Order: sequence, then C-alpha cells, then structure tokens
Amino acid sequence: MTRSDFTSSDSVRSRRPLRHARRVAFGELRLELGGCLSEIVVVYETWGRLNRARDNAVLICHALSGDSHAARHSPSDDPGWWDVVVGPGKSIDTRKYFVICPNVLGGCRGTTGPNSLNPDTGRPYGAHFPTITTADIVEVQKRLVDHLGVRMLLGVIGGSMGGHQVLEWATRHPKRVRGALAVATSPRLTMQALAFDVVGRNAILSDPHFHDGQYYDKESGPDVGLALARMLGHITYLSRQAMQEKFADDLLHPRDVATEFEKKFSVGSYLAYQGDRFVERFDANSYNTLTMAMDRFNLGATPAKLRARLARSRCRWLVLSFTSDWLFPSEQSREIVNALLALGRSVTYCNVESPCGHDAFLLEDNLATYGEMIRAFLARLIGREESVPSRGDDDAYALRPTSIFHRHRVDYDRIVSLIPRGASVLDVGCGPGGLLRRLKRRGHAPLMGVELNERDLVTCVRRGIDAVQADVNHGLGALGDRQFDLVVLSLALQVIRNVPGVLREAARVGRRVVVSFPNFAHEKLLGSLAERGRMPRASRLLPFEWYNSPNIRYLTIADFDAFCRKYGFRIHQRVGLDTGKGREVKGDLNRLADMAIFVVSR
Amino acid sequence: MTRSDFTSSDSVRSRRPLRHARRVAFGELRLELGGCLSEIVVVYETWGRLNRARDNAVLICHALSGDSHAARHSPSDDPGWWDVVVGPGKSIDTRKYFVICPNVLGGCRGTTGPNSLNPDTGRPYGAHFPTITTADIVEVQKRLVDHLGVRMLLGVIGGSMGGHQVLEWATRHPKRVRGALAVATSPRLTMQALAFDVVGRNAILSDPHFHDGQYYDKESGPDVGLALARMLGHITYLSRQAMQEKFADDLLHPRDVATEFEKKFSVGSYLAYQGDRFVERFDANSYNTLTMAMDRFNLGATPAKLRARLARSRCRWLVLSFTSDWLFPSEQSREIVNALLALGRSVTYCNVESPCGHDAFLLEDNLATYGEMIRAFLARLIGREESVPSRGDDDAYALRPTSIFHRHRVDYDRIVSLIPRGASVLDVGCGPGGLLRRLKRRGHAPLMGVELNERDLVTCVRRGIDAVQADVNHGLGALGDRQFDLVVLSLALQVIRNVPGVLREAARVGRRVVVSFPNFAHEKLLGSLAERGRMPRASRLLPFEWYNSPNIRYLTIADFDAFCRKYGFRIHQRVGLDTGKGREVKGDLNRLADMAIFVVSR
Repeated sequence: MTRSDFTSSDSVRSRRPLRHARRVAFGELRLELGGCLSEIVVVYETWGRLNRARDNAVLICHALSGDSHAARHSPSDDPGWWDVVVGPGKSIDTRKYFVICPNVLGGCRGTTGPNSLNPDTGRPYGAHFPTITTADIVEVQKRLVDHLGVRMLLGVIGGSMGGHQVLEWATRHPKRVRGALAVATSPRLTMQALAFDVVGRNAILSDPHFHDGQYYDKESGPDVGLALARMLGHITYLSRQAMQEKFADDLLHPRDVATEFEKKFSVGSYLAYQGDRFVERFDANSYNTLTMAMDRFNLGATPAKLRARLARSRCRWLVLSFTSDWLFPSEQSREIVNALLALGRSVTYCNVESPCGHDAFLLEDNLATYGEMIRAFLARLIGREESVPSRGDDDAYALRPTSIFHRHRVDYDRIVSLIPRGASVLDVGCGPGGLLRRLKRRGHAPLMGVELNERDLVTCVRRGIDAVQADVNHGLGALGDRQFDLVVLSLALQVIRNVPGVLREAARVGRRVVVSFPNFAHEKLLGSLAERGRMPRASRLLPFEWYNSPNIRYLTIADFDAFCRKYGFRIHQRVGLDTGKGREVKGDLNRLADMAIFVVSR
Repeated sequence: MTRSDFTSSDSVRSRRPLRHARRVAFGELRLELGGCLSEIVVVYETWGRLNRARDNAVLICHALSGDSHAARHSPSDDPGWWDVVVGPGKSIDTRKYFVICPNVLGGCRGTTGPNSLNPDTGRPYGAHFPTITTADIVEVQKRLVDHLGVRMLLGVIGGSMGGHQVLEWATRHPKRVRGALAVATSPRLTMQALAFDVVGRNAILSDPHFHDGQYYDKESGPDVGLALARMLGHITYLSRQAMQEKFADDLLHPRDVATEFEKKFSVGSYLAYQGDRFVERFDANSYNTLTMAMDRFNLGATPAKLRARLARSRCRWLVLSFTSDWLFPSEQSREIVNALLALGRSVTYCNVESPCGHDAFLLEDNLATYGEMIRAFLARLIGREESVPSRGDDDAYALRPTSIFHRHRVDYDRIVSLIPRGASVLDVGCGPGGLLRRLKRRGHAPLMGVELNERDLVTCVRRGIDAVQADVNHGLGALGDRQFDLVVLSLALQVIRNVPGVLREAARVGRRVVVSFPNFAHEKLLGSLAERGRMPRASRLLPFEWYNSPNIRYLTIADFDAFCRKYGFRIHQRVGLDTGKGREVKGDLNRLADMAIFVVSR
C-alpha cells in the first residue's frame, strides 16, 4: 500500500469549484425514453484553440465518476482526471487540438442532473429526475459542440462509460465525427458488471437516509449506501493482480483512516477511505442515474444487430482494451472490432498488455502503447502521418523471429509485383506494416493488417495503416466472403497450428491468397540432413536451432503442391526465390528455391 | 434464466428444522485468539455406518452458507447441498463410507454460534460472540470425531471455506487424517475476495437494524445488509460466462419476485430473490463471524511458510480447482500443490475445465471429472484401487497425438530396463500412467506423473498413481534439486517450446533424465525428403502431415548429441530402436533407429 492510494485526485478536488469551468444553458430537451427537461445547463472546460478550419476539435467523454476537469489548465491548477493523456505535448496535445470536456447530463458537477434545481418547481429534481440514456447524454454534448461552432469533431474519445458515449456519437451523428476512439468499453455491459451496479444501487436505495431520493434538504443523505457502492466499484476497477500487489504484504496493517467502516485489513482501510472520499464529491442520485444509463446502454445484443447499428458510422475507429480489464473485458471490444471489420470500416484495435485492470486507461503505466496510439491516430485524422524511416522498418522486421532478411525484402518486391494495381489487401501477420506501406504508396485500398505484436501495431498506427490485433490462428472469422481482393500470408505459415483451417479462411475472405514460406527441400538444407544427419540451419533462411525455433511447421514446395491438390486450392502462380542470391529461380523450384511464393484460390 | 435459479435448495429448507440432525455438547473451548466458550453444542448428520476397523469415516466440511445437511437421508428427505456427490453409489458412497457432516462453530444452524444462548448470561451471544478462527472450527470438529469413536479419518473433504478446514485438519491433526481432499480452496484469500467480504460486512455493520449485533430481541435485524452481502457473494460464485448465459437473453424481463430491492433487470430480480431467501435462513452475525475466519485464514503467505506449514501433514492429497473460478483461482490451488511437491508428498491435482465458476464444486456439470476423482481417490485410500485393463491403457495411449504404438510399448520395455530397481521416478507427460503403472508393479517409489490432459489424470487416480496437472513447458519449478532418481520425458520432447529450459529443469530435479524421441535422420524418413522432396510421413512413427502435426520439434540423434555437448549434458546411455521391427538396433543409430532413448545428467 503506498501513500498515493490514499491521496488520489478525488480528495484534492472535493467540493472545490471547478475554476476553469464554463456554463451554457439550452432550452427544452426531449428524452429518448419519454418526458423532457425544460432547461439544460452544461458545464464544460476547454483547452487549446479552435483553428480557422475548425477541424481540430477533440471531445472527451468522461466516465461514471469523472467531470469536466480532464486536465490541468496550468501547472498550478488542480490535477485533472486524465492529466496523463491530455495537455501540452501529450497524446491529446492541447497545443494542436481544441479539446472540449463537458460534465455529463445526469452528473453532479454542474451540468443538469438530479441535484440541479428543477426550474418548474424551484426545488432539486432528486428522484424526480427522469430516466436518461446515453443518447440523451450525447444529445446534450451535441448542443454544446454546436454552441462552440464545431461542425465536424476531429475525434470523440472516452473510456468505460465515456466509451459508450463515443459509440453513441459515431452511430447517431455520423456526419459530425471524423474519428472515434473507444477505450476500455463495450457494446453493452456484461451481466456481471451490471449485477455489480444493481448491488451498488440497492445499497443506495435501501439506505434509510435515501428518502426516495429527496434527501437534499435533509440533515444527511445516503452516504453509507453511496460509499458501499463506491467500495464495490473500486474492486471492479482493479485487476486481481493489482489488488494483490497493493495489499497482500501488509494485509494486517491497515492505515488508520477516520471512518465508520471496518478497517481491520489494509484493503479494508483503502476501501473505507475511497468510499468516504467519494461521498464528499459525488451525489447518490447521480450515481443511480448514470449507472442506470450504463446498464441500459445496448448497441446491439447480437453480432447482426451490432453490425446494423455500427453501419451508420462513417468515421475511422481506434478501439483499445486492456488485457486485465475484467469489468469491460477485451472480448467486448473485439465484438465492436469484428462488427466494424465485417462492415469494411477503417479500424485499428489493440488489446494492451496491462496488469492494471479497468483503471489502466487512467494510468501512466501503459501510456507507451495506448497513449502513443491515441496520439498517432489523431495525427492521422488531421493528416499528419508520421514518416517512420524505411530503414527502421526493415530493422524492426529483421529482429522478428521469422525474419530472414537484413536489408532488402526481395520477397516483398515479388509479392507486390504479383498484386494487381489498386487491389484491396489484407496482410495476415503484417508485422510493423512494411508490405502494407509499400502497397499504400502504390495506391491500394482498402488495406488492413492483422498482427499480434503490440509494438508492431503502434508502428502501423504511426504509419497510418489500419491493423487489428489478433492471433493468426483464429483471426479472420469476422471478415466477410471475398471482402478483399488479396489476402497475404507472408512467412506466416510456419507458425500456424491449423494450416488447412487458416488457409481456407484466407481463401474465403480473399479472392486470391498469396502465401510465402521457406522451402525445406532446398538443396542446401537437404544436404545438411543427408550428409551430416543434422537438421538444417542456415544463417539467413532458418536462423534457429531445432530446439529454439519459433517455427512449428516445416514444408517443401512439393508438400504445398500436394496440400493444394488435397484441399482443393487452385494454384495461379508459383514463384521460387533464392534469397541468398537475391533473385528468382526457374526450373526445379523444389531443389533450387529456398523460399516460395504461391498465389492460390479456392 | 431458468426456473431452477429461483428454486434453489436454499428456499425449501428455510428455517425448517434439520430432521436428521443430532446434537452433542462439549465443555469449555479455549480459542486460538484468546478467550473461551464455556460450552459447545455441535449439530451434525451422518450417513452410512462406521465399519469394524473404524477406518471408513469421511468428514465433510461445509462452506460459508452450508450446514450439516449435505445430502438426503432418504428419497423423500429435503435436498442436501451436496446431493450430487454424497449418497448411495455416488462419489462419496454412503454404502461404503461412514460420512459425517457437522454444522461449523460460529454457524447458525444448531452448532454454537452468535445466535446461540450464552450459558453465562442466558441471552444470545450476538456481537459478544468471540472472534474465531478456522483452527477453532476444526477443534470442535475433532471433538465430534472423537465422540463418534473415529481415530483415523479416511478422508476430510471440503470446498471453499470447507477447503480451509481440510488444510487445517491435515496440518493440525496429521495423525488423524489419511487423505485430504481440498476443493476450490486456497492457502489464504486473494485480496480481491477479501475485499468483497469487507464490503459485505460493511453492508451488515452499517445497517441501522444491526444494533451492534444485538438484534435478536428486536423487531427486525440487519436483513438489508445481509441480503446485500449475499447478492454480492452470488456474483462472485458465478463465472462471467455463466452469468451471461443465465441472464443476457432476457435482460429486460425480470421475474416478478416479491422484493423491496431493485428488479428492473433479470439479473436484478435473481439477486433480489437470492438475497431475500438467504435472510430467511442465515444470521448476519454468523456471516460476519465466518467471513472473518475466512479472511484471517493464512496457511502461509510465502512459498517457504506454506511449505513449513504443509510439512506437518502426513496424508495423501487430492487438490481440485476449476478453471473459471475467480474467487478461489486455480493459481492458489497450485501454490498448495507446489508446496506439497517440494515436500515430496503424495499429491494429485487437477484444474477441472469448467465454465461454472466457484460454484462448480456444488454442481453436476463437471462430476465426470471431479466426482470421479473424489471417488477413485477415496477408493485408493481404503485400498481398493481399480484395475484399469492394460489393453485399455495402450488403446488410450494409441489415440493420443504423440502415439506411435498400437499394442505393445517396446520403448517402455527398454526404458524400464534402463531404470535401476527401486528408483524414484517422475514421468513428465505421463499420459494415463502406463509407464508409471509398470514401475509401480516393479516396486518403484515414490512415483509421480505430470500431465495436462484431464481424462488421463482421471485414469491415473483410478490406477492409484499420483499425477499433477501441469504444462510440460513450465511444470517442474516447484520440485527440489535431485528430488527424483530419474525424470522421464517419454516422447515429450517434440511438443516442448523451450527445450533447453525444460531439460535443464529435468536434470536439476532428477539425478538422471531419460529422454525418448523419434529420429528424423532415420533412413526411411530421409529417403522421403531426398528422393521425393516431401516432408516424411510414416504411418507408425510420424503419423501426421506437416500441416496438422501436434509436434513442433524435429530432431535427429546427431542433433541431440550436439545439443548435449553444447548444454553440458553428460550422456550415460544411448539406445536406438527400430519400432517397425520392434527391436533395438546397433551401429549407426542416426541412420538405423527411428526412435532414440538417451539417459543423460548434468
């Protein structure tokens, strides 16, 4: 347990006014589920300046307990909840972008919510505040964006409940969003996450001080219920591993915090502290209102419905999840990504390796991946893709386990020459996007990569290439029949477990499939086995020993010929390369080529 | 959502007297943490009969919300909480065993607990009930066992909190336990599980009807707090997948249960129902008392402390966890198993593949694995191991991916002949235990298997062979240096990713290592590549194609010679087999043998 666990940004801002917040009022709002609010106040903060073209605005949507204060406005300002991402020179660079963050409808930090005065009665809404949805929250944000003179948002970004708003924006106002950045979110809550919300609300609703929500003029409110809900929430925001590391070592040494709650264990004193602090700055009716909006959010309960809904969007997508997030687990982000892939939309996805749980998107720990992806994605949207040096590309590739080249990719040259001009291409196992970049420069579109390596994905985003993180062994299921002109499996066959399955999938998704692999019957390799009785090892082509190779499949050109016959693949082209000499070979390919490129279909 | 979710055994037994329960009273009990209880009443049930040798008694330890009624005593009896496991002909066969299940100390179903009358005051203990530990719970059980005339328990079994009691029994009363069956349990709670307990207790403690625990004479008790704690508990007992399957499809169609709690969603109506029913049969003070005993339970926070504690045990161990259990995750069972392995204790472990979460051990779904293991383990303890037919053995092995033999294991013959009489052996990748069974009959001890396949593990238990479920790639870390005379890797090399790492580990754990593998330089195999340019495929030795083989490592005898030189392995013996002819070969093994057996050390 560190001191910082007890000095979160929560406490320093408790009940302090938001110094940089502005207010704007709008007229009647008709609500999605019926009823209306006769007046809406929105409290928001902005950073940076709207440029002349009015095309550099980024809208930040906060999560359940957030507010408009996403970041410091100056070094002496109170900490913001997303200081790690938002600020001068940061991922959302306030020197480049005009950043807007409003408090949500139904919240309790200035924007109209249950603790606001109902203009019709002159008293707080309390429990009379109507049931609102994510659509209502977004509708209010849209009025603010209109008010600020922004026609097209460069990006809409948010994590968790904020991600729900991003999904709503992209599908409800497709002409207003250039890029959607959906972080640690889902098309709808898991039943488990929803169940936790139910227990939290029940704690509030059954608190005797709740008074059916009309507690604002009472001496005390449902502080115990709200604190219990917050304690429960806190458990779900952390991963099991993170909790273990924080509290296991000094389990029996709680911090001596002033609290009415149990503090017999270190983790107990932490939860008590978090619960007590939350009550100082949050409102129980808002908690109920906003969790209910989350619980009702449903972009589509089946893949078909999700596709239908996402089909309305017109933007580019960046979807990010975190491996240890069990509240918004990565499968749910993949559902969104799969729907977008099926729709042929521009999407990049990474499941960021992190031990931090759902909170990861608020923390510095994985900024090198998720922060860098946000930065590069926004840069692409505004048309400033980075030029990652070509040498860096090949270097990066040379370090990869399947690499056989140190400088020039003679196989890429040949593969590119096999692809008809303008054809759309899916590169399965695309690495840092070297081949796709060549194709992009040659004018191919759409282009899409599939890759498992996180650092390679970051490079792809920096190069303005769409790439989705997936295991080659089962990554194509979401794509439609004949969705691409070509599917490329460049030196990927060696690591595939179910070769027939993956190749069948590739031939379903692509009209043609380009497959390249090292040829095990090449005379130099064969010589090793026949003459020395040793498995072949060649510095360029097979740079590994039998006991440490990442490769699991070894085959010859003749084997692949036979495989194609057996599984009904039609061979359109068959190219042999001698990579040692850096050239194509002719004749008995099985003996002369150390690498083969096939173009097949099915 | 099915009807059964609303008709759990909870409701049918609510507040009904336990018809078959008996009572016994004991004198003063001094408590582990100080203080004492001047009189103890124990309520318990028994099934079956104690035999003349008094060696067939099985003690069942119940979990948090359980009681003495583990099973029906007759078909017309009320359902028991473990009817799937306990009964005539079932895993814990009441026709064979004398089964005892007491209500725990601190509980609320008859055994002395907070709702019992304090004989010193004539009023219920309430909050004056002292803080008890798992050791106190077990001490009371021991008095009962003494009272029933049982000197040596054949088995002590329990899941979850019941598993804590099993661990306590085995280490506190080692001479009284022949077999410990620890199911879905842990050496201590995770911080996450403990945090959920803290929130549950806070809900109870802050309920205004709690009255500092003295609510028994009040009109109402802390029913809301207890119900909230139970709702929360219920979420943690189910896996995310199980909750999804139960509630996602009719999320917006809650059951119309009579409740004060929120019931807007199907999962909400379920939680409300479970919370309300629990209050009818359970006591809030008991909930606090027992969860606190769980939270304090700590068999050892470090591997060294855990080993020191488990070193006191003298019994055989069966440890079972469930893959989707996130409350008592399988890593925690592995900690127990690793400590027992390091101590050289007889232990069998399986992480049962199940989607059912922590509740899995109460359900019928995975009975074929966990129920069968319990049955076979008890049979072994009482000396009635099953004779699994030898033919079945070889058949089972022949179906396995690495199999090269259909009837007779000529390699086993040769391996057995290489092992000195009486030597202790660890078989890594032991399959259904064919080799270990031969060694057992030959008098070797101790013997231990490591295997990933669940069904093979069941067969091992039925054969009275200790086997631990682990991935060959990182399964030996827990074992001590030179713990076995021999470590066998029989046809396992081909599927190992980190060959040097695993072999070094094997040579650390065993004085000698026996390694067998197919030889890729065998003339028949080489011929295929050299003459036909195709990767070899032989019906017996390499019965797979390049694209569907489970093997990932291919090597020759010469390769292994070179590997041993490079990594400092000393070769003691080098045997070549021609499995086609079913005999050993001499001379140029690299050409003539299709299979090699090496004995090495380091």
